[in-house]
Amino acid sequence: MIQNPKNIAIIGSGLVGSLLAIYLKKLGHTITVFDRRPDIRNITFSGRSINLAMSNRGWKALREVGIEDEVRNLAIPLDKRAMHVIGKPLYFQKYGKEGEAIWSISRGVLNKRMIDLAEGAGVTFRFEEKVWDVSLPEAKLYTGQSEKSEWKEYDYDIIFGCDGAFSRVRHKMQRRSRFDYSQDFIDVGYKELSIPPNPDGSHKLDKHSFHIWPRGNFMLIAMPNLDGSFTCTLFLPFEGEVSFERLKTEADAKAFFETYFPNVMQVIDDLLVDFFKNPTSAMVTMKCYPWTYWNKVALVGDSAHAVVPFYGQGMNAGFEDIYVLNQLIHAYGDDWERIFQEYQKERKPNADAIAELSYRNFVEMSSKTADPRFLLQKKIEKRFAAKHPEKWIPVYSRVTFSDRPYAEALAAGDTQERIMREVLKMPDIERKWDSEEVERKILSLL
Amino acid sequence: MIQNPKNIAIIGSGLVGSLLAIYLKKLGHTITVFDRRPDIRNITFSGRSINLAMSNRGWKALREVGIEDEVRNLAIPLDKRAMHVIGKPLYFQKYGKEGEAIWSISRGVLNKRMIDLAEGAGVTFRFEEKVWDVSLPEAKLYTGQSEKSEWKEYDYDIIFGCDGAFSRVRHKMQRRSRFDYSQDFIDVGYKELSIPPNPDGSHKLDKHSFHIWPRGNFMLIAMPNLDGSFTCTLFLPFEGEVSFERLKTEADAKAFFETYFPNVMQVIDDLLVDFFKNPTSAMVTMKCYPWTYWNKVALVGDSAHAVVPFYGQGMNAGFEDIYVLNQLIHAYGDDWERIFQEYQKERKPNADAIAELSYRNFVEMSSKTADPRFLLQKKIEKRFAAKHPEKWIPVYSRVTFSDRPYAEALAAGDTQERIMREVLKMPDIERKWDSEEVERKILSLL
Repeated sequence: MIQNPKNIAIIGSGLVGSLLAIYLKKLGHTITVFDRRPDIRNITFSGRSINLAMSNRGWKALREVGIEDEVRNLAIPLDKRAMHVIGKPLYFQKYGKEGEAIWSISRGVLNKRMIDLAEGAGVTFRFEEKVWDVSLPEAKLYTGQSEKSEWKEYDYDIIFGCDGAFSRVRHKMQRRSRFDYSQDFIDVGYKELSIPPNPDGSHKLDKHSFHIWPRGNFMLIAMPNLDGSFTCTLFLPFEGEVSFERLKTEADAKAFFETYFPNVMQVIDDLLVDFFKNPTSAMVTMKCYPWTYWNKVALVGDSAHAVVPFYGQGMNAGFEDIYVLNQLIHAYGDDWERIFQEYQKERKPNADAIAELSYRNFVEMSSKTADPRFLLQKKIEKRFAAKHPEKWIPVYSRVTFSDRPYAEALAAGDTQERIMREVLKMPDIERKWDSEEVERKILSLL
Repeated sequence: MIQNPKNIAIIGSGLVGSLLAIYLKKLGHTITVFDRRPDIRNITFSGRSINLAMSNRGWKALREVGIEDEVRNLAIPLDKRAMHVIGKPLYFQKYGKEGEAIWSISRGVLNKRMIDLAEGAGVTFRFEEKVWDVSLPEAKLYTGQSEKSEWKEYDYDIIFGCDGAFSRVRHKMQRRSRFDYSQDFIDVGYKELSIPPNPDGSHKLDKHSFHIWPRGNFMLIAMPNLDGSFTCTLFLPFEGEVSFERLKTEADAKAFFETYFPNVMQVIDDLLVDFFKNPTSAMVTMKCYPWTYWNKVALVGDSAHAVVPFYGQGMNAGFEDIYVLNQLIHAYGDDWERIFQEYQKERKPNADAIAELSYRNFVEMSSKTADPRFLLQKKIEKRFAAKHPEKWIPVYSRVTFSDRPYAEALAAGDTQERIMREVLKMPDIERKWDSEEVERKILSLL
């Protein structure tokens, strides 16, 4: 298929590592995937995962390499949010137009299948082999039992770092001069909980909804699994009045759930057991540049750009990296230096954009949802978008249901914000928000 | 002097490490300073230094521990900039009021003296002993020949990381969850050059000036040394039309200096030798948080906050860290957890402020000095400040000649910027910039 097959190492057998392995193997390269962890197909999953929401960009990347249908079988479409607001009956918010949905997949289930698919395609996996060091100019890597033990040396043509937000490969690049890097943690943590299926295997809540219990600066979400269960995630500040730090005893946690999530208490039998068994995890935005070293090493996915999970785009962005890389390989053939240069130039602004959008969604969810001005703005936007769907595409739709660049979605969102700032300045806007005057004003500003 | 003397390790024997050692030793603690480099008192200095500009904050920290006079003897006061602009005769700009000056000191000369002073006070130095790892909760450190060699373990009560922008101690803290970190390189590099003294030992240029050859997005500066020489620094973009990348041969470099710095060519005999002998260095802004770990480990100086050198405040900010730490030790006695908490809370916003101010000075120098609006603004500010010195303290003076917090200087500068934006909007401002109307306008906005 290609003139010059390469001997390629991929560090990390997660979702991005295994998909990249499938792509590159299909192109005719020899692929070895290293992972310090054991084969997840043989172990129970960790209990620190948020379910994945596959959307347009993810599907497109899977389709390109012929495994979309395989993966659809593992996923459940969610076409709406189910809002569990205290003092209100349950209500629903459609995500997009008819037929538009995000797809809930368990990370563990998907990762296992992807490794199967990669192995089936001829990829070699070396599990429980930790890479301690990388020689960037020579594309050599060194593995071993510990940092100070005897190391084994491997020689490759190209190394891809798909080893996540705390990438060892990037760590090596980071020690070079002129490497820009940032990691910013948010002050909210998360913990995985689980709603078991009914005795008959059915789901206890509506299965085609993304369930949200918004509570100001904290919230619970739930996404369905194929086995009838839901994977829940509690997002809660680490410190402060209502926080992980304050939930020290079973009695604390019980009172917390009874106060804020009474209907959840009823459906999770082992809530308190889960709560103290599962770890509390932190969330980080990680940015860096450059992403590549000559024609030898490249970072893909979270190792190049980790985002907070509030847009559900982490995996989708990583899969889109691979899709773009593949296009560039087709465009520039064996010129890996050019491929890597174009790859980082094209992807970096989009990675920055989805990082910003994801962080803004966090701020929005944690502080703005109680602000009456914000809610008024959302009402006006919704009304206008319904009347002029071609003139006002919500940022959420641009990110989730299109494959236009993230940077374009961010810019369009900024334009919409500027317009709405003017609209909210209109006298008496609270009263006349649904008037033709407001509609004309928006049209004039577009 | 204190009830509970500690066994303290300081990593790094640079300016901040040695001054901190002097402070802590005088308080009665046992101090060992580790440095991976050899004792600089026995070697020739590296040729990658920018001369230091000691200003108010630095002097205050030296005075507190009784070594101000010692250090004054090594320094030359500069009360003005000497501007070498192409096509104009040399002209001077006073820094501040009568008697206000910054003080030029060679980094090597000062560092050697500080180590002498620390040793004299009873501090132990362990040179050429590299710290490879630190156990934060136990305040243990591990040194050795190489990362993989046998390591020696040391046990301390407290460890201070004064090991600079690429700190090994911070590196260890950085691997913990919820540690915020960023490093941002600018696209300009620098190279040290040297103007030798006249045969009679006198200076070839005015000795009480900070010499600047501004050339748009690059520049040369020169600061005097006691021996009659000047340490020069060429700041130049790494890439682009006029850049380090384009100066590959002696002929390239000769043409560059003849075109842009003809009067410098005449005074540096070995200009081209220096140019190719000395390294080209990068400049980084580094921010992180937290700076401390329990009551065990703290970062001080560049290891906690590295700034680009365009405000001449890197060392001054590090010395001010020590001054503040010392005040907190006096306030909270043996409660090191409290000392460290208060230290990072007080210093972090000020470190961020001087980072921002330093970066802005870089942008100003590299892109704004040719902008006529900017020059007009500076003219108006200067006139107003001369008439109302108590109402308009320039940011430079707040940073350099006061000891008020950096964050206050930044905020005051932002207020001045807002006012000047309004002033520059006045019709016909180019013509009436020195009118009473403009003066009244500024007064009304203050």
